[in-house]
Amino acid sequence: MSRSLKKRARNIGLPPGTLIHVGEKRSEKVKIKVIDYSEMNFEEEELEGIEACFSFKDKPTMTWLNIEGIHEVSILERLGECYGFHSLTLEDILNTEQRPKMEDHGDYIYVVLKMLHSNEGNSVVIEQISLLLGKNFVISFQEGMEGDVFDPVRERIRSGKGRIRKMGSDYLAYALLDSIVDNYFIVLEKLGEKIEYLEEELVTNPTRATLQSIHNLKREMIFLRRSVWPLREVISGLERGESPLINDTTRIFLRDLYDHTVQVIDTVETFRDMLSGMLDIYLSSISNKMNEVMKVLTIIATIFIPLTFIVGVYGMNFKYMPEIEWRWGYPLILLLMAGIAVFMLFYFRRKKWL
Amino acid sequence: MSRSLKKRARNIGLPPGTLIHVGEKRSEKVKIKVIDYSEMNFEEEELEGIEACFSFKDKPTMTWLNIEGIHEVSILERLGECYGFHSLTLEDILNTEQRPKMEDHGDYIYVVLKMLHSNEGNSVVIEQISLLLGKNFVISFQEGMEGDVFDPVRERIRSGKGRIRKMGSDYLAYALLDSIVDNYFIVLEKLGEKIEYLEEELVTNPTRATLQSIHNLKREMIFLRRSVWPLREVISGLERGESPLINDTTRIFLRDLYDHTVQVIDTVETFRDMLSGMLDIYLSSISNKMNEVMKVLTIIATIFIPLTFIVGVYGMNFKYMPEIEWRWGYPLILLLMAGIAVFMLFYFRRKKWL
Amino acid sequence: MSRSLKKRARNIGLPPGTLIHVGEKRSEKVKIKVIDYSEMNFEEEELEGIEACFSFKDKPTMTWLNIEGIHEVSILERLGECYGFHSLTLEDILNTEQRPKMEDHGDYIYVVLKMLHSNEGNSVVIEQISLLLGKNFVISFQEGMEGDVFDPVRERIRSGKGRIRKMGSDYLAYALLDSIVDNYFIVLEKLGEKIEYLEEELVTNPTRATLQSIHNLKREMIFLRRSVWPLREVISGLERGESPLINDTTRIFLRDLYDHTVQVIDTVETFRDMLSGMLDIYLSSISNKMNEVMKVLTIIATIFIPLTFIVGVYGMNFKYMPEIEWRWGYPLILLLMAGIAVFMLFYFRRKKWL
Amino acid sequence: MSRSLKKRARNIGLPPGTLIHVGEKRSEKVKIKVIDYSEMNFEEEELEGIEACFSFKDKPTMTWLNIEGIHEVSILERLGECYGFHSLTLEDILNTEQRPKMEDHGDYIYVVLKMLHSNEGNSVVIEQISLLLGKNFVISFQEGMEGDVFDPVRERIRSGKGRIRKMGSDYLAYALLDSIVDNYFIVLEKLGEKIEYLEEELVTNPTRATLQSIHNLKREMIFLRRSVWPLREVISGLERGESPLINDTTRIFLRDLYDHTVQVIDTVETFRDMLSGMLDIYLSSISNKMNEVMKVLTIIATIFIPLTFIVGVYGMNFKYMPEIEWRWGYPLILLLMAGIAVFMLFYFRRKKWL
Amino acid sequence: MSRSLKKRARNIGLPPGTLIHVGEKRSEKVKIKVIDYSEMNFEEEELEGIEACFSFKDKPTMTWLNIEGIHEVSILERLGECYGFHSLTLEDILNTEQRPKMEDHGDYIYVVLKMLHSNEGNSVVIEQISLLLGKNFVISFQEGMEGDVFDPVRERIRSGKGRIRKMGSDYLAYALLDSIVDNYFIVLEKLGEKIEYLEEELVTNPTRATLQSIHNLKREMIFLRRSVWPLREVISGLERGESPLINDTTRIFLRDLYDHTVQVIDTVETFRDMLSGMLDIYLSSISNKMNEVMKVLTIIATIFIPLTFIVGVYGMNFKYMPEIEWRWGYPLILLLMAGIAVFMLFYFRRKKWL
Repeated sequence: MSRSLKKRARNIGLPPGTLIHVGEKRSEKVKIKVIDYSEMNFEEEELEGIEACFSFKDKPTMTWLNIEGIHEVSILERLGECYGFHSLTLEDILNTEQRPKMEDHGDYIYVVLKMLHSNEGNSVVIEQISLLLGKNFVISFQEGMEGDVFDPVRERIRSGKGRIRKMGSDYLAYALLDSIVDNYFIVLEKLGEKIEYLEEELVTNPTRATLQSIHNLKREMIFLRRSVWPLREVISGLERGESPLINDTTRIFLRDLYDHTVQVIDTVETFRDMLSGMLDIYLSSISNKMNEVMKVLTIIATIFIPLTFIVGVYGMNFKYMPEIEWRWGYPLILLLMAGIAVFMLFYFRRKKWL
Repeated sequence: MSRSLKKRARNIGLPPGTLIHVGEKRSEKVKIKVIDYSEMNFEEEELEGIEACFSFKDKPTMTWLNIEGIHEVSILERLGECYGFHSLTLEDILNTEQRPKMEDHGDYIYVVLKMLHSNEGNSVVIEQISLLLGKNFVISFQEGMEGDVFDPVRERIRSGKGRIRKMGSDYLAYALLDSIVDNYFIVLEKLGEKIEYLEEELVTNPTRATLQSIHNLKREMIFLRRSVWPLREVISGLERGESPLINDTTRIFLRDLYDHTVQVIDTVETFRDMLSGMLDIYLSSISNKMNEVMKVLTIIATIFIPLTFIVGVYGMNFKYMPEIEWRWGYPLILLLMAGIAVFMLFYFRRKKWL
Repeated sequence: MSRSLKKRARNIGLPPGTLIHVGEKRSEKVKIKVIDYSEMNFEEEELEGIEACFSFKDKPTMTWLNIEGIHEVSILERLGECYGFHSLTLEDILNTEQRPKMEDHGDYIYVVLKMLHSNEGNSVVIEQISLLLGKNFVISFQEGMEGDVFDPVRERIRSGKGRIRKMGSDYLAYALLDSIVDNYFIVLEKLGEKIEYLEEELVTNPTRATLQSIHNLKREMIFLRRSVWPLREVISGLERGESPLINDTTRIFLRDLYDHTVQVIDTVETFRDMLSGMLDIYLSSISNKMNEVMKVLTIIATIFIPLTFIVGVYGMNFKYMPEIEWRWGYPLILLLMAGIAVFMLFYFRRKKWL
Repeated sequence: MSRSLKKRARNIGLPPGTLIHVGEKRSEKVKIKVIDYSEMNFEEEELEGIEACFSFKDKPTMTWLNIEGIHEVSILERLGECYGFHSLTLEDILNTEQRPKMEDHGDYIYVVLKMLHSNEGNSVVIEQISLLLGKNFVISFQEGMEGDVFDPVRERIRSGKGRIRKMGSDYLAYALLDSIVDNYFIVLEKLGEKIEYLEEELVTNPTRATLQSIHNLKREMIFLRRSVWPLREVISGLERGESPLINDTTRIFLRDLYDHTVQVIDTVETFRDMLSGMLDIYLSSISNKMNEVMKVLTIIATIFIPLTFIVGVYGMNFKYMPEIEWRWGYPLILLLMAGIAVFMLFYFRRKKWL
Repeated sequence: MSRSLKKRARNIGLPPGTLIHVGEKRSEKVKIKVIDYSEMNFEEEELEGIEACFSFKDKPTMTWLNIEGIHEVSILERLGECYGFHSLTLEDILNTEQRPKMEDHGDYIYVVLKMLHSNEGNSVVIEQISLLLGKNFVISFQEGMEGDVFDPVRERIRSGKGRIRKMGSDYLAYALLDSIVDNYFIVLEKLGEKIEYLEEELVTNPTRATLQSIHNLKREMIFLRRSVWPLREVISGLERGESPLINDTTRIFLRDLYDHTVQVIDTVETFRDMLSGMLDIYLSSISNKMNEVMKVLTIIATIFIPLTFIVGVYGMNFKYMPEIEWRWGYPLILLLMAGIAVFMLFYFRRKKWL
């Protein structure tokens, strides 16, 4: 949380549009992959420098530039100059703590959103993806460097099957967004399994660790919501916007994507409701346990305290205690005490404590 | 929950419009029932293959095709080609985890919603129904294979009484939706009975099982809401839409259906409120019980602990203890202790603990 | 609750517009009262059969038909034929579990709402009222048979004072709605008194019965809300609708009625807030009580347990215990114990437990 | 609460527009104060009868009629006839349980709102104020008779400084509303002080009385909200309305007043949030206290119960108990017990109970 | 809280537009700094009196007047006369308890908002900033006197780099607002760190102080929300307003600023959710602790109370107690008691209490 704020804070006091990378520091080289295709032709390359890709700009074919890693500011600067992107757009791409949003700049559309994936420890990792969609190009920026979410899209372009080669940049952008949203379902599935596991644990053996897990999941939901809710507006903005960059045939697909996003939001809200319910169950289960403990104590104490009093009485050293001298005093008193104990047990059974 | 996500997840990475059945695997043969009727004529058949129904396409009579089971993808593919359905529509029919929605594709309207029924164990089962409504046909897809919800509609068509044979495909679609929504009331009635039963149990004898039942019902409500809330938009979309496929006479009936849907939502919300109230009652009833247990313990302990101390005093072995030697020491001390006990009881009564 | 759903469920599978009475079965004869009036003339009658009232249909005078009891379906059927009401309207009148709503059918307006009255046991009874408002008639249907809510309106028509005889059917409908909403205030007043009584009980002597009463009132509020909230839309629909059946002079009165409805909703919400606050108070008062009980136990135990230990020490039978032999051993030990007790009491006082 | 409903209930069954005073019965004479002014002239009078003021009606000067007490219905009736007010307006003025609202009747605007002041007991008193704003007059009705809220306005008219004498009736009405809303801040300030005092008490010494005070303040907030929220709509209705009675120069002032109202609402909501937080703190502080009590009991009991057992063992009267005969048995056993006690204390310290 | 109300209250009863300083009393002299610049020239001065700045009014260059301290009312009065500001605007500048708002007065725009900074004690301080934006000037008022938030803006003007010298007063106003909103992130970062620290403390060692800290942070959030939520409307009002004072090029930057504001609101809401979750965790952790304490007490008591009873039995002084005389009575009874203790421990282990 404060990690994200620290990043923002680094940026403060500078004029707007200043390009500063505010994400994690990295030393790897930025990878620039270009796929250039038309219905008939297809070309795929990993470029050494950003300049190599400027030649694609004026070709009539579709160009998809995928840039993995945004820590080399100079790449962005030259790209911005070449394509004429607004400096605020470039600043937003570099700032990895954007709220998902969509901006129509006339000759290009800027979309920023979050990609989710679970890491080994099974906690959710949030990574920022920026898309720039122009007349004959799509440029995608990935914060991290190990993403293979776009691989199925690449495969579809390579194989040339389906619509993708026949359609424009808007459909490619849709395909990329679709693969990101599809990935949400995988993350949600894993969270759903965790929740189910916790629910079972709650019934069989709730411990302090269960509570901690519920709390952690609730926290994760807070962050998930922040990533997912604004996405709805983004997609609906693309679908309903009046940009000539988006064709009507693609709008139907965006509508479908919108439905998926709503389903993701629905699921996140359902998980939140379920986690709240589980916290209630946990608390009342603690109360129940305490109740049980108290009952055991009360039963034992209530039976033995009076008996201990009685034996105390005949442990007194008074000179003149007639019962002491009786022949059957001892057995009688044992009998009396057994009677009291039986009566108590009977009383507790009637009160449903046993 | 995660079951539904697993299904979605299976679909990921494929181009949109790819037809893959993501529901439960089944081995039974898909049943295709066709009812073809006009005001005067009526024909009912169970078809062997999907090709047999294409002849109905160009007849001026109304055709209702009911397909039970959606696990044979090829049926859908051929149907889609013949009628010209969009590939995303076909994909949505196969994906059994849709959120209820309505899509107007110009020459046909696609409606997907959930059918509820309670199984033997009295838990609610949710099944997906898709409807395709065109100029002279309605095609309905049922996920499961044992549905008889549509039987009353069939009976009305067979008998030829009432409006149904005189009106178009829009009225038939309305009649099918109406029979699904009517079924919701039966499910809600059963849930209502469970809630009433639990409320009584709460008053007479709340146990841990009661809590578990409340929790389970709350969970069921979360899923019910997800099925029912979007339905409202679906029906109102049909009623207020501008599609020429829906006549004004049918809109009045859709308005009536909309009122029923609102009533269903109202009832679900009422149940939720009631269940929340019951959880509060349960928790305070646990507190009350604990209080009672603590009082019993406190009364017993508070009376006997001082008395036990007194008898302990006269159990000491000091050489010089004048009281020990007294003739009436023993009866006097018994009297003293009786006095203390009576005083304590009196004190507790004044404090309203007894 | 489930009672209402059972009623609905009885209706399922039938074509829309089928007339079936779904309320409680009754054997009494339905009462049909007609009041026919113009500014100058006035006629009041109790009709034997429904046919007798058809003669009023074409008279230019205002006709108010009040039908108490809706269990004779044939009456409604013939009325519907004569006046040309839509079959869905007739079905809705018979179904006593309608959500309040307003429907403009062009030549008549259909209004359905709930009438509240408290029965002897002081619980709120909800009864359905339907109004049909046409050019020169108002037809009102009462579910129950003992209503005298409309008596003041009747009296005003009889006396001929005020506006009512000079104005049209819209004003009469307004007057009837007004008398129903006025009745809500009486019911709310009684509930308000109950709540005040409970608040006092909470402060002086909260018991399990108090909790039960709060819970019951909360439940009643859930049902009240369902009756009252949609009423707002109904009245505002009448006021703002474009129906020529409602004159501008009447709209001012409907605006006034709307204000009353908002006030009713306001009060119901206030009651809900107050009841929630009371539940919190109840729970914390239980905690407080428990705390007090625990303090008493702890004080008694903490004082006497150490003392009992000391007397136990001198009750041991060791051969060589020097203190035992001392001349002042006994009084010294008594003094020591008194000292401990005093110290303990002092300690508790400093901790503010006494 | 039920007081307000009782008042309303008295009115039921009467035709709308019937003038009945439903507030508290009073015997004092109603005071009628008139201030008549133009930019140059100024006249102030206390009238004996209402007829005396009719002469002001047709004068071109501004007339402000302030009527303290609304229990003499005849005054209102004659005023209504003279100025031509709608009978529903007059009825609303008499009914002291109105929800704040604004009604534009064409040639006059009717505004009803609540005035707050704290009485000696420091609880908030709510009094109803009605304003009638016409072309050259403002008539204000005060429910109570001891109001001096309007004194600063009077003073400004008398002195002739500032804008007020130069502007029309709309500015006068604004000035009156402004002085009422300003008074809200005084009431809120007192409530804010109470809340701060309670917060301190919560930290230092929370008692049952603290809880009661929080609860009472919460209740007061419920009623405050009801008075304040609708006021927002009232002021914004005046500001944005299209009535020619309100000039554009006054609208800027009304905008300012609107901002004040929003600030009042903001403060009320903040108080509500703070009070909710305080209830949580109270409850957890009770739990904390209970925890502490339980710890003391547990420590004492856990140390002495085993020791008491040990001394009990050596109090047994068996013939053959070797330890009893030992020379150092007694000191050894005392040592053993001291050891156990020390160990226990050490254990509790490690558990952070001490 | 009540501090802010007290201030407001001081103002009551005065005619609107009366200039009274309602903030904290101060004795320092007000600092007036002027920066006058065009693309080529730049001049910076600290003025002695307010009159000195009137000369800048009619110059075509951009003038930024920064006034630190608003406690000298006369400065404002003369400024208002010279520039022709509305008296309500001047009153609002002096009143330091404004809700953030934006007012378009035609030839100038008035913006009031809150600046946050954390003081040494790490609690958030809220200071009011007013901006007056005209054709060729920006006048900023700071409540406090130690602000250096605007320093980076000053630096950018001095250096002449970037856009700022080339653009108009609207861009300057944007730059000032941007630097204020940027500062929010620093404050939020500090709060985020506090929350993280508390979360850790909750897990390792929750104390009463933790609860107090959570409560204090929750309170701070209530006040933060009040400052931040209305800001959204302010910025969006500037961006979407139709004032000719704001150019289209600046609107893009305002859009960016709007996104930042939404991010701030998002973060505040996230913090609120997290703090609520932490309170739940705290409460259940108290319950857990109590449970543990009770278990220890119950185990000790349940083992030793029966044993103490047994030794009490053989401490009785009956003449005829056969066991007493037995040779192996003592060891046998010790064995029996050990057996009971072992059984108890076994029982508790099975119940998972140990």
